[in-house]
Amino acid sequence: MRTLGLDIGGTFVKWAEIEGERGKIRTNRSAEGVISVIRGLIEEKKPDRVGIAVAGLVDLEGRVRHSPNLRWMEGINLRDEFDAVVLNDATAAAYGEYRAGAGRGRKVVLTVTLGTGIGGGLVISGMPFVGASGVALEPGHMIINPNGKPCNCGRRGCLEAYFSSYAIERDYFELKGEKAGIEEITKRYRAGEREAVEVIRAATKYLSIGISNLIMIVNPDIVVLAGGLAFDIPDLEDLLNLDLFGIQRTEIRKAELGEYSGALGAAFIASDNPRLLGT
Amino acid sequence: MRTLGLDIGGTFVKWAEIEGERGKIRTNRSAEGVISVIRGLIEEKKPDRVGIAVAGLVDLEGRVRHSPNLRWMEGINLRDEFDAVVLNDATAAAYGEYRAGAGRGRKVVLTVTLGTGIGGGLVISGMPFVGASGVALEPGHMIINPNGKPCNCGRRGCLEAYFSSYAIERDYFELKGEKAGIEEITKRYRAGEREAVEVIRAATKYLSIGISNLIMIVNPDIVVLAGGLAFDIPDLEDLLNLDLFGIQRTEIRKAELGEYSGALGAAFIASDNPRLLGT
Repeated sequence: MRTLGLDIGGTFVKWAEIEGERGKIRTNRSAEGVISVIRGLIEEKKPDRVGIAVAGLVDLEGRVRHSPNLRWMEGINLRDEFDAVVLNDATAAAYGEYRAGAGRGRKVVLTVTLGTGIGGGLVISGMPFVGASGVALEPGHMIINPNGKPCNCGRRGCLEAYFSSYAIERDYFELKGEKAGIEEITKRYRAGEREAVEVIRAATKYLSIGISNLIMIVNPDIVVLAGGLAFDIPDLEDLLNLDLFGIQRTEIRKAELGEYSGALGAAFIASDNPRLLGT
Repeated sequence: MRTLGLDIGGTFVKWAEIEGERGKIRTNRSAEGVISVIRGLIEEKKPDRVGIAVAGLVDLEGRVRHSPNLRWMEGINLRDEFDAVVLNDATAAAYGEYRAGAGRGRKVVLTVTLGTGIGGGLVISGMPFVGASGVALEPGHMIINPNGKPCNCGRRGCLEAYFSSYAIERDYFELKGEKAGIEEITKRYRAGEREAVEVIRAATKYLSIGISNLIMIVNPDIVVLAGGLAFDIPDLEDLLNLDLFGIQRTEIRKAELGEYSGALGAAFIASDNPRLLGT
């Protein structure tokens, strides 16, 4: 059986076959553009099954419902369009890490993706947990500081308002008075620049609260950090309360599948056809 | 098949049969006392299967691991002692509400128990979620205010430090300068006493943050509030962000099974023998 996994992001459609090739194709920022890229890949690869991961909320009907980085995809039903399994990208990544990455063989795999926003995916007893309407695991919008900093979602004190590329860029600008993108700030942090270290350390404290809260709810045996901001795990471990009342030391590791984790996870889900928990 | 469900709390062992009788027996505060009550009930009822719910953390081996209100039970392995299914009481209550209460037929049932502390239980696709080491769903120890009020667990800013009987009693004393127990404060709140209303409204704001965070993680189709402090749902609904980006209005309801929810849930789990998710 040939399976094709796709991961639709803001600028690229990434694709992966389980034991085979992978690649990425830049898209113009339109639903038509994305759909024609997917159609082309399906015509070329002729898969028996297709899995699609989307950087946004996907409902149980396979429709993209809320996606700040893919506004042009909102309302599109990808399941009907391509007869595919359609899921949130962090959920797909969690399944990929469970099947072939840092979470292999684990009972409860929690993946937290750190980048423009914060996403989450959870695989329980080998089954992806999608929630009652498909939108479980949005840890970026846990409130960890009432009346705290404003979040893009319109509320205050969400985790994303403290730890995300835009939050770190904002805090760096406020501290240093100089505009710099997240990649530059990360580079300066690694080089030990005082302001970059201060801003990222402060943001990491909030991240550790968020992950600690997730551990209290989900009791995973492993937390897998993915995405461009998943650096610096030793520092994070020091901040986290990982011992759960002395019962379990929760392991925390970096993702192993890299930038194709979403596409590969979608391919595995299409291939394995696991029960989607919550449905 | 005869099934007996038991719920071990700080002062009573409650028992329930699925279609039959129920009752409670006061225990002295010792492991020997609790065990002899359970033994007596089993000899009397002669069940084929026994389910035991415990007000504390229970590991996957059936051992009570951490229980502030049942310190004398810590270390006891109830599964080996009685050949029983042993679970946290809030998880048992969630299963009871799923099978015969407010969560009947729902896909993702989240129960939050509000009393001395805050507990949680989650039933996904008909299966209780216990987590990788049996201790999932401890929402009372989500941190919702960094550097906030001290919690009994030794950390700061946990939900329980804001909404729980001890937190409300503390805040009432601080505001009014008069000691009163939670039942008296609740009575005064219902009578409209200014200080009681102020304290409980403030605590409820934090509870709404905690439940909103749980909804972001768990995406339940129903939140069932149980326990002595589960009053005042209309006020709580006004505070909650229940709409999940417009995708789903999450329903919030009071538990229907009352004080025997844990015992009845344990009986249903012993009878149905569902897969325990996370194991």
